[in-house]
Amino acid sequence: MTSNPLLEPGATIGILGGGQLGRMLAMAAARLGYRSHIFCPDPDSPAFDVAAAQTVAAYEDTAALDDFAAAVSVVTYEFENVPVDSAFHLDRNVPVRPSPAALYMAQDRRNEKIFLTDRGIAAAAFSAVDSAKAVSAALDKLDAPAILKTRRLGYDGKGQTTVHAANDAEGAWRTIGEARAILERVVPFEREISVVIARDQTGATAAYPPVWNIHENHILKTTRAPAPIPDTLAKEAQAIASRIVETLDYVGVMGVEMFVVNREGELSLAINEMAPRVHNSGHWTLDGAATDQFEQHIRAIAGLPLGSPEMIAPRVEMTNLIGDEANDITALASEAGDCIHLYGKAESRPGRKMGHINRLRWSEDGSAKV
Amino acid sequence: MTSNPLLEPGATIGILGGGQLGRMLAMAAARLGYRSHIFCPDPDSPAFDVAAAQTVAAYEDTAALDDFAAAVSVVTYEFENVPVDSAFHLDRNVPVRPSPAALYMAQDRRNEKIFLTDRGIAAAAFSAVDSAKAVSAALDKLDAPAILKTRRLGYDGKGQTTVHAANDAEGAWRTIGEARAILERVVPFEREISVVIARDQTGATAAYPPVWNIHENHILKTTRAPAPIPDTLAKEAQAIASRIVETLDYVGVMGVEMFVVNREGELSLAINEMAPRVHNSGHWTLDGAATDQFEQHIRAIAGLPLGSPEMIAPRVEMTNLIGDEANDITALASEAGDCIHLYGKAESRPGRKMGHINRLRWSEDGSAKV
Repeated sequence: MTSNPLLEPGATIGILGGGQLGRMLAMAAARLGYRSHIFCPDPDSPAFDVAAAQTVAAYEDTAALDDFAAAVSVVTYEFENVPVDSAFHLDRNVPVRPSPAALYMAQDRRNEKIFLTDRGIAAAAFSAVDSAKAVSAALDKLDAPAILKTRRLGYDGKGQTTVHAANDAEGAWRTIGEARAILERVVPFEREISVVIARDQTGATAAYPPVWNIHENHILKTTRAPAPIPDTLAKEAQAIASRIVETLDYVGVMGVEMFVVNREGELSLAINEMAPRVHNSGHWTLDGAATDQFEQHIRAIAGLPLGSPEMIAPRVEMTNLIGDEANDITALASEAGDCIHLYGKAESRPGRKMGHINRLRWSEDGSAKV
Repeated sequence: MTSNPLLEPGATIGILGGGQLGRMLAMAAARLGYRSHIFCPDPDSPAFDVAAAQTVAAYEDTAALDDFAAAVSVVTYEFENVPVDSAFHLDRNVPVRPSPAALYMAQDRRNEKIFLTDRGIAAAAFSAVDSAKAVSAALDKLDAPAILKTRRLGYDGKGQTTVHAANDAEGAWRTIGEARAILERVVPFEREISVVIARDQTGATAAYPPVWNIHENHILKTTRAPAPIPDTLAKEAQAIASRIVETLDYVGVMGVEMFVVNREGELSLAINEMAPRVHNSGHWTLDGAATDQFEQHIRAIAGLPLGSPEMIAPRVEMTNLIGDEANDITALASEAGDCIHLYGKAESRPGRKMGHINRLRWSEDGSAKV
């Protein structure tokens, strides 16, 4: 459904997915006077604790989806792995933002790559592959090493593996579960940055400054805002993100990951991937920007004007708390400008994101003094 | 109960009262990884929408209180009009923070006045009165005009009226519902300020800078941080607030309202009243301080160390949205650094606090640029 007037205060926003992103979306909705209804198959979803209503059902349960659609004024999602058929099903009865079409494009790496290359937006060279033999053949074209990634359902390094030589092809194909995939040329990048951008229903956009993302074990560990890159490159990164959301007639927040490539001193950008949702690399905005990404997303889907993406401190660093790192929160955030966010997950497991800390800093030496 | 170890992440905090203060406490608890259980007689409580569990029952319902105590790890309250007997009842089975004794003192204006004057802390002169005749007699001692205030259950100018002369006594007594009251000398103050202060279980305190409160129709309209007062007076205000919470062995956040009295250029302070809870004049901290008052309160009652009360912008202004002022939120918060907070109340009524806006400002001319 495309009609979407301004959501009245007190209206209910439906959110597919009950993880930490859904939880932080629900809290942003509450700050703006809205109720949230979370739909998630997991009865232990962290977002349930801060929502006015909950549905525990499979994403494919059309009866449950219909009840959900009837109970809410707009539907959004916290992650791109919601079945696209469910999004299209819901959209017959209630506006779904971002649109199911954007979800369809972004949840499949091959579709995403084609979308980008058709529009002349730089991304790593790739081939679609659907067998070990195809992996081996594609490797001839792309130069080893290359990265084999499932087309769907990958995150935090899951569903991907590096292929060093043609005789790795069989093993790599098994490693990713023999799922339809792409083989992607390794981009020799200097750093990974991302642009989190919001677009509202009038077409207005608001891009946060590009940030620098540092990974450990394929999981985002630290985001530094702003990214230490030249201003012209930062503007180019924001312009690329704007072009993507405009082309898709996108409504909501999107995270666009990019590589900064350094060819003999000449810097350029290549898209790594797009996430049609609020993004881990935007968590710093909860404390470090005038309007945070979660509120920005709610504003966009509710028909409110976007807030300002300006930073409210010169430097902000976000650190994910992974596994048992969240156990001693008293020691973690001791300085003025250290802001704790925990997700209320019952069980800490290795590699599981349990929370994050935002550190606002006002001076070059990292002190917190305003 | 006095035992109160560090609350583990995922533990449940019980909150008596389901209004906007309970709502913002519940959201702060969620950010720290805790669950909230709200106890409130009103089935339409705004705090219910962001809490993991809800009890709708009268505060005097001891069976419901016992179930509540069994379901939570610590109990706190959002307002001082919780029946003190209920707080003492709960405290037999679960820690109640701030203590029922602090609640007992602060919920009765006469007790509060005696507490302050016994400790030599300046407050307006007063007499306890329990009849129209007593009002008339007290007026002789205090000089007209004086303010007649019910000892209990007053807020936002409710339960009080001005007595201009002895022959007003009968009418004034009826106006306040013939309830036990105090008659208070009018303090010719220059401005009202307040100090919001937190104290944790180790006795550490963190006072926010004093702020200037501007009322309209007896309701707080605007708070400006910091208050435009000399630094020595600001420090004195914080010292008085510290002394109060230390004397009470208080755990949690308290709001202390004070008058700035100007006697021929000499500035001094007189306590207006104390609120044993998070305070409307502390709402600016949600966006304008390193740690906001709601998180500070949760940290204190959960056994976490306090966060920093430092301002993160040089100037912050909080404006309450009262009655239908919240209807057009798109127009209200248009500049970078304007942060909207709505309470999700179903019905807007004249005089009802529906939300507030925090405006962060970095320059003298009021611009929002960082």
